[in-house]
Amino acid sequence: MRLVTYQDRAREQAARAGVLIDEYVVDIARLAAHDHADLPATMLDLIDAGPPALQLLRSLCDMHRYAWPVGVATLIDNVRLLAPIPKPRKNIFGIGLNYVDHVAESSRSLDTAREMPGKPVVFSKPPTSVIGQGDAIEHDSRITQQLDWEVELAVVIGRSAKRIDEAQAMSHVFGYTVINDISARDNRRAGQWIFSKGQDTYCPMGPCIVTADEIPDPHGLALSLTKNGRVMQQANTSQMYFRIPALIADIASAMTLEPGDIIATGTPAGVGAGRTPQEWMVPGDVLEAYVEGIGTLRNPVVAI
Amino acid sequence: MRLVTYQDRAREQAARAGVLIDEYVVDIARLAAHDHADLPATMLDLIDAGPPALQLLRSLCDMHRYAWPVGVATLIDNVRLLAPIPKPRKNIFGIGLNYVDHVAESSRSLDTAREMPGKPVVFSKPPTSVIGQGDAIEHDSRITQQLDWEVELAVVIGRSAKRIDEAQAMSHVFGYTVINDISARDNRRAGQWIFSKGQDTYCPMGPCIVTADEIPDPHGLALSLTKNGRVMQQANTSQMYFRIPALIADIASAMTLEPGDIIATGTPAGVGAGRTPQEWMVPGDVLEAYVEGIGTLRNPVVAI
Repeated sequence: MRLVTYQDRAREQAARAGVLIDEYVVDIARLAAHDHADLPATMLDLIDAGPPALQLLRSLCDMHRYAWPVGVATLIDNVRLLAPIPKPRKNIFGIGLNYVDHVAESSRSLDTAREMPGKPVVFSKPPTSVIGQGDAIEHDSRITQQLDWEVELAVVIGRSAKRIDEAQAMSHVFGYTVINDISARDNRRAGQWIFSKGQDTYCPMGPCIVTADEIPDPHGLALSLTKNGRVMQQANTSQMYFRIPALIADIASAMTLEPGDIIATGTPAGVGAGRTPQEWMVPGDVLEAYVEGIGTLRNPVVAI
Repeated sequence: MRLVTYQDRAREQAARAGVLIDEYVVDIARLAAHDHADLPATMLDLIDAGPPALQLLRSLCDMHRYAWPVGVATLIDNVRLLAPIPKPRKNIFGIGLNYVDHVAESSRSLDTAREMPGKPVVFSKPPTSVIGQGDAIEHDSRITQQLDWEVELAVVIGRSAKRIDEAQAMSHVFGYTVINDISARDNRRAGQWIFSKGQDTYCPMGPCIVTADEIPDPHGLALSLTKNGRVMQQANTSQMYFRIPALIADIASAMTLEPGDIIATGTPAGVGAGRTPQEWMVPGDVLEAYVEGIGTLRNPVVAI
């Protein structure tokens, strides 16, 4: 299933969880209520509710998909999509230097090592950095002249994990989404990346979460990023150095992963810092981050 | 006021917000309910409720302190203190390299620069790292042989802040607490500190939050840390390089600070990595982190 968080454009309402089916956003809680069943109204609560909730949702969608009950389905053009998890419960985990060719370009242009790291390089982006489909990436020229892009496959955790084997790791995955890991390259501090990568609007996420059952192999997905229609990054998640089970098991060896936690799995080559000459995002640019099987996350850059 | 989050040892109950008065923990929501008033039952909700809630709480305490209504006050020996904010809404902001003498010792023993940083060095610790008074710091010898301590004054934000002047910054402070910024020195990765500092149990916090009105000058507080009774760190917050208004204004220049956010303001010299010979925490050790006017945070180290 393709799960979204949305607001109805016509009605003033809180953010609600929906399923994308054909050209409709189907409201999850309202669909259930129509059948006197109970499903959560927000994405985090849906994740917390676990596999039985997803199974019920799947049945309800199958049952009603040829005639949605009144008030349950909205044409996608009439809704505003938010980030699938608009307000995560903790900082998003990011993984640096996880594609071989990006490690090479980073060692040439940034202050990172030429060798592949021995362990995943973990950093974080606060919940306040998250924006959704179509939302503006803020360019504050008082703070940065080196605003950069990074398309990434992101993993959404479904079940708590602490000290687990790699073999168990994939059973903790709820689904996948796309993150554009925006980075102000001139804002690294004593090597720490949170200020560079954690500013408000620096974590575009979406357009949807695709549940894990629909992506049997997350290590064979094309991913790409265009700026103003021009291809800047183009690669495949098969090129990840530390794969998803290794990332989950590694983080969970020391830090409990909780339902709704998000791991952005790293970016391939083609970032602005790695190009010759270097190239940065400026107001007016439009970024499109794409991962196969999930979709395209489109965000304009605006001056503030 | 000295605010705590506590659980009654006798009754199975959720974590609740209380005020420390004499030898009692006074339950905030129950005290208000006794007077047919309404105050929140948790610390985050109390912070969200803003200054009017604190004002009401102060009056209720003044009114009743010579005879607490039945069921409102518990002897402190009969409660378990948790971290004042047991589950922050995002990662705790940490500030590295913010005391001149600690920068010197770090440049000798860790991979940091000898010069003072030009901007605050921001990193983060996840909510899952937080523990409270008396809770065990876990020592996992499969992961680290270099577990270290760092006593710090921590600032609790009371009011959202984005793009504010230093002159306004202190009006966004709710109060202060103590954090022991536990760090596995051998777990830094490509320089990133979250894995080193963010593991479960690596953020002892407490014993209480002292509201800002009771600490008119947070830059004149003695702070110290003992290991098994021996003094390892001893300094004064007057030695901070970036002071609290600068830290708040700097973070808020790019990342929205929200009510309940926590900033650990950095540690002075005397950490284990900086000693000759180096010295690490081992199971059986007891750490006591003290900040004047707030109290002593005591945590044992246990093997897992």
